[in-house]
Amino acid sequence: MEAVPYLAVLAAVAALGLAAFFYGNVKKASPGDERMVFLMTEIQKGAKAFLKQEYTWVSGFVVVMAVLIALVIAPLGAVSYVLGAVLSAGAGYIGMTVATMANARTTEAAKDGPAKALPLAFRGGAVMGFSVAGLALLGLSTCYILFVLGTGGEDAFEIITAYGLGGSTIALFSRVGGGIYTKAADVGADLVGKVEAGIPEDDPRNPATIADNVGDNVGDVAGMGADLFESYAGSILAPISLTAFALSIDADAIDASIHVPLLMFPMAVAFVGMIASIIGSFTVRGGTSTDSSALSKALHLGTNIAMGLTLVATVGLAYWLFAGDDFEAPYGLAVSVIGGLVVGWALGKTAEFYTSDHYGPVKKIANQSETGPATTILGGISAGMVSVAASVALIVIGVGVAYWGGQITLEQLALDNPAIPVGFGGIYGIALAAIGMLATTGVVVSVDAYGPIADNAGGIAEMAELDPSVREVTDALDSLGNTTAAVAKGFAVGSAALTALALFKSFEFAVAKAGGELSLNVGEVEVFIGLIIGAGLPFLFAALTIDAVGRAAQQMIEEVRRQFREIPGLREGKPGVNPDSARCVAISTKASLREMVIPGSLAVVVPLVVGFIDVGALGGLLAGALVTGFALAIFMANAGGAWDNAKKYIEAGHHGGKGSDPHKAAVVGDTVGDPFKDTSGPAMNILIKVMTIVALVFASAFV
Amino acid sequence: MEAVPYLAVLAAVAALGLAAFFYGNVKKASPGDERMVFLMTEIQKGAKAFLKQEYTWVSGFVVVMAVLIALVIAPLGAVSYVLGAVLSAGAGYIGMTVATMANARTTEAAKDGPAKALPLAFRGGAVMGFSVAGLALLGLSTCYILFVLGTGGEDAFEIITAYGLGGSTIALFSRVGGGIYTKAADVGADLVGKVEAGIPEDDPRNPATIADNVGDNVGDVAGMGADLFESYAGSILAPISLTAFALSIDADAIDASIHVPLLMFPMAVAFVGMIASIIGSFTVRGGTSTDSSALSKALHLGTNIAMGLTLVATVGLAYWLFAGDDFEAPYGLAVSVIGGLVVGWALGKTAEFYTSDHYGPVKKIANQSETGPATTILGGISAGMVSVAASVALIVIGVGVAYWGGQITLEQLALDNPAIPVGFGGIYGIALAAIGMLATTGVVVSVDAYGPIADNAGGIAEMAELDPSVREVTDALDSLGNTTAAVAKGFAVGSAALTALALFKSFEFAVAKAGGELSLNVGEVEVFIGLIIGAGLPFLFAALTIDAVGRAAQQMIEEVRRQFREIPGLREGKPGVNPDSARCVAISTKASLREMVIPGSLAVVVPLVVGFIDVGALGGLLAGALVTGFALAIFMANAGGAWDNAKKYIEAGHHGGKGSDPHKAAVVGDTVGDPFKDTSGPAMNILIKVMTIVALVFASAFV
Repeated sequence: MEAVPYLAVLAAVAALGLAAFFYGNVKKASPGDERMVFLMTEIQKGAKAFLKQEYTWVSGFVVVMAVLIALVIAPLGAVSYVLGAVLSAGAGYIGMTVATMANARTTEAAKDGPAKALPLAFRGGAVMGFSVAGLALLGLSTCYILFVLGTGGEDAFEIITAYGLGGSTIALFSRVGGGIYTKAADVGADLVGKVEAGIPEDDPRNPATIADNVGDNVGDVAGMGADLFESYAGSILAPISLTAFALSIDADAIDASIHVPLLMFPMAVAFVGMIASIIGSFTVRGGTSTDSSALSKALHLGTNIAMGLTLVATVGLAYWLFAGDDFEAPYGLAVSVIGGLVVGWALGKTAEFYTSDHYGPVKKIANQSETGPATTILGGISAGMVSVAASVALIVIGVGVAYWGGQITLEQLALDNPAIPVGFGGIYGIALAAIGMLATTGVVVSVDAYGPIADNAGGIAEMAELDPSVREVTDALDSLGNTTAAVAKGFAVGSAALTALALFKSFEFAVAKAGGELSLNVGEVEVFIGLIIGAGLPFLFAALTIDAVGRAAQQMIEEVRRQFREIPGLREGKPGVNPDSARCVAISTKASLREMVIPGSLAVVVPLVVGFIDVGALGGLLAGALVTGFALAIFMANAGGAWDNAKKYIEAGHHGGKGSDPHKAAVVGDTVGDPFKDTSGPAMNILIKVMTIVALVFASAFV
Repeated sequence: MEAVPYLAVLAAVAALGLAAFFYGNVKKASPGDERMVFLMTEIQKGAKAFLKQEYTWVSGFVVVMAVLIALVIAPLGAVSYVLGAVLSAGAGYIGMTVATMANARTTEAAKDGPAKALPLAFRGGAVMGFSVAGLALLGLSTCYILFVLGTGGEDAFEIITAYGLGGSTIALFSRVGGGIYTKAADVGADLVGKVEAGIPEDDPRNPATIADNVGDNVGDVAGMGADLFESYAGSILAPISLTAFALSIDADAIDASIHVPLLMFPMAVAFVGMIASIIGSFTVRGGTSTDSSALSKALHLGTNIAMGLTLVATVGLAYWLFAGDDFEAPYGLAVSVIGGLVVGWALGKTAEFYTSDHYGPVKKIANQSETGPATTILGGISAGMVSVAASVALIVIGVGVAYWGGQITLEQLALDNPAIPVGFGGIYGIALAAIGMLATTGVVVSVDAYGPIADNAGGIAEMAELDPSVREVTDALDSLGNTTAAVAKGFAVGSAALTALALFKSFEFAVAKAGGELSLNVGEVEVFIGLIIGAGLPFLFAALTIDAVGRAAQQMIEEVRRQFREIPGLREGKPGVNPDSARCVAISTKASLREMVIPGSLAVVVPLVVGFIDVGALGGLLAGALVTGFALAIFMANAGGAWDNAKKYIEAGHHGGKGSDPHKAAVVGDTVGDPFKDTSGPAMNILIKVMTIVALVFASAFV
């Protein structure tokens, strides 16, 4: 049983090996002709320049936090924090590097049809998927081996929790910065290019096209990679730190037969999930048809296999670790994990229902576009809000099932041993449910990262003015990417809520361990004040990020207009006249970095300030931010997705098709939805976790 | 001291006398020529027909609830419940009757300038203002005399709390039904009339114009009246029931010297507030100029005088009732009341800042309209969300100050007497703060109800094709109405949060009194599940009401289009050709009544169901709904108001004025904002209180 952390290291190394292997696959594919290589290189340069500047800025923040952790918590905590930050940044960087290599190669492969292009795009995504999962698990299990099994001081678990905070810090800034970048460029490119100049999307004449493609990579790839790094690490950390803090209040009363399996199970599930993901990833092959359901089946096969294997293995693990006198029904913990997986899947399906044009809600919004943009907007807002209610119902079921499962297995514990809090088993089950959603992160992220690669491949096909048949293939691959993203989103938002809840409980125990008195009774005025502040914060955060996109987009719009005005022959497409793309890239980079500072810092500074004033108020704040942030995240993501696909549905020829009045109305909806779904919404998930994990790491200092 | 309830009856009767007097004033004014009388009568007929059908439907609901209360709580509770419902409906009916008489009379008076028209419109509004406050206070103090001082059984306070629930039931359905009606008619009239047929607002050719004007009366007058009835009654009830439930857990340990002043103070503040409002209302006189700041000063003089008098008298009351050995610093309770008043005022000013075109946010949205409807929408959403953060900060200050004030005066109590819960004084202070906001309801509602009367007067001037100089005067009066509404809104939303918080605490005590065990610890899974359900409910409620408006508006649009198509000569304005207005009125009525059932019932059914399953989950649900509902209510109200005024700002000649592209973009924003600010937002305040008060009334049954 003690071998589990070492097995986790092994699985992580295997995942990284697989990533390296896929990297080789991608690298040896041809990137196409000179023009395509040029475009690819431009996108790559822009993306790397952004990440370099972003990481430079964030590293300043990381240093300040590290010093604070070293002084207030423990010097080793700073080491663990920096490790989490560096690995998370590294995962984003690797993913982005490969994605910007895979794009042109996918375009080139698309000349031979989807059978060649689909696996290539998938393997490009898989480099990131397995880098993210591999690095996260490697770092975490190494920290565990070094700081818990090794030095093993009293604050060992604060120290490894700081690892999660490191990952979360990078994730927060990457999501906010990358989200602002990608939408500023997108809006700028669309508004001037498509609307004012009347040229198609990804047209090489548009100065913002390169920036737009860079944005896909820094937002959807690097940002998403860092996000999933922190989600994955956080979901494994949450049950570990929960166990550690809950059972350390009266540490002498707990013996190893209880302690050890509880600490090992999360890493063991991660181990089997990783192996299953590796197996699953080899089953993804492209067919010969561009038919969307065949492609979708091919792409999802790997995920389905990985999930199935994980489910079966989890039951075995539960019996292996928990069969014994103290543990009455080992299957309970497997139920928690499986419950999480099923609910995560259902959340993804819910997101798909509300955002895919195969179902009623999006068709209804498209229909509402007949009466103009106002009804389009109201339709999307209402669909997004209803989807909140549906998702709340699912999370409630997930929490209930996972709690029940944990209690079934562990309830004997609290009865036998008064040092173990009543209800601990249930919360442990909830934490496991988040792992259920994320154990197969390797393959889930591979599928997710496939999306922007296919999107970029289409962009390059357009900019390089290739044969329309190539664009047809990339379009088929791309449209698939839009629905696959829904699954990953469901897991991300569901696991965020469950992980945050588990970390929130860990915070409660950590305060108790530090000798503090923490009331989370919302009937008390301090807690209630915290609750209402917490409910208000996600609104402020959303407003700040929306405004940031608006301001950055404005600068982009002015620059694109200027170039069309001042560069003779650009609009007409005179041969040899090229736009100054680099300048657009530089503007997006500068604006988004400047704009990410305030919302990003808010998430870290507010809980610190409130925590040092009153720890009960901080508890209320976390609860308020968690429930409202969850609701707002789903609202914004699904409303945005619904508008996007309503527009695409109309563009596919319904309600008058492209250029019709309903289409214009739908474009308005899509533009409103852009910062909703790609900036504010995804960042909200990280916001709630960052705040909770800050509280947890600093809990002993607050008391 | 025991005379206070009788003094309250006296003040209520005086208020009703004043309402009768103002009614006489309005009635004897001339309603103008035949055409104006015809229009007035049409509006009146439509409004009465709607209210009649609405009340018929709601009375079915009231009967079911009354039976439930009689069976589960106490037969007298049913009496008190029905009384609250009947008086609330009566206040709405009276207000609406007078408003629909005052409109044409104000138009007629406007021929002689604002000096005659302004006081007339104000007095029309004052009939409603003083009917609302008078009936609410009369009913409440009568119930108190009959059921507490009279029969005085053990469940006396459950019985009088049911009075509040009766008022809340009517308020909820009136706000939802009226809100759907007014926006369906408004959107229908604007979209086909202004946009498609290109005829001005309130044009007599538009078949939906009468329905639109009816909507102003059923939504902004009757709906608002019922709303303020329940807010006012609720704010007086909250500290009374709080005292009763908190001190009855161990009733023998509390003597009358503590009990009585705590029960009397709320009614005493209501008494002085009412007298002050009566005095203030006589100071409103119109000047000769149509200059907006002079008019505004004239209109606000009454409110300012009433508030000043109330402040001074409250300090005196605190000393009168609370000077004694047990009560160390009587001024503390006055601080709570005054703190509430100041924070309510500040909330109103915040709303004004974010929604008035004198300040940055609205100007910024108008500026964002230059780049089209998408940026207009994003600007409004962001402004609304930032205003949430500002309002949260104010409420936190209000809660803090009021809590501190209550503790200062009453903290000795808990120390002397262990039967009194620690922190009781602070929560009592919070409940008082809500009274501070609403003590001058009489005059505040008068000013608020003035708005739709002035609006209708303008509509009649337009439809009767009077001299443009008349419209100029009514326009000046009307534009004033838009800003005065902000003050009442601030009080409504602020008092809703504070009242709900106090009722929430009462619920906690009521459960304890009934022998139940209520944990409000959000770290427990039942409470957390409740919290997340509660956070999701306001989103569902908002979506349902937005969709309801959309569906009802769609029917209206089709009918208006049909009439323009099928009635020859209508669009061209051929003399003698009239639209079939009655049919539009009937459509709005039917659609809005059908649409109000589900969202309205939700608010009552959900807490009942959850409460019977698990009382801790209900506690969490109330807390979650309270904080998220508060945030969403402010977001929707202020975003909607900001869009509305951005459009008006552009219409006043900025950014190209009427008909320009920025104007078209701003119209989109305004249309999106309509259901936000006039349907979903205002109903949200009542939603959170109805759910809490349902929980409170049924607390003993849940246990």
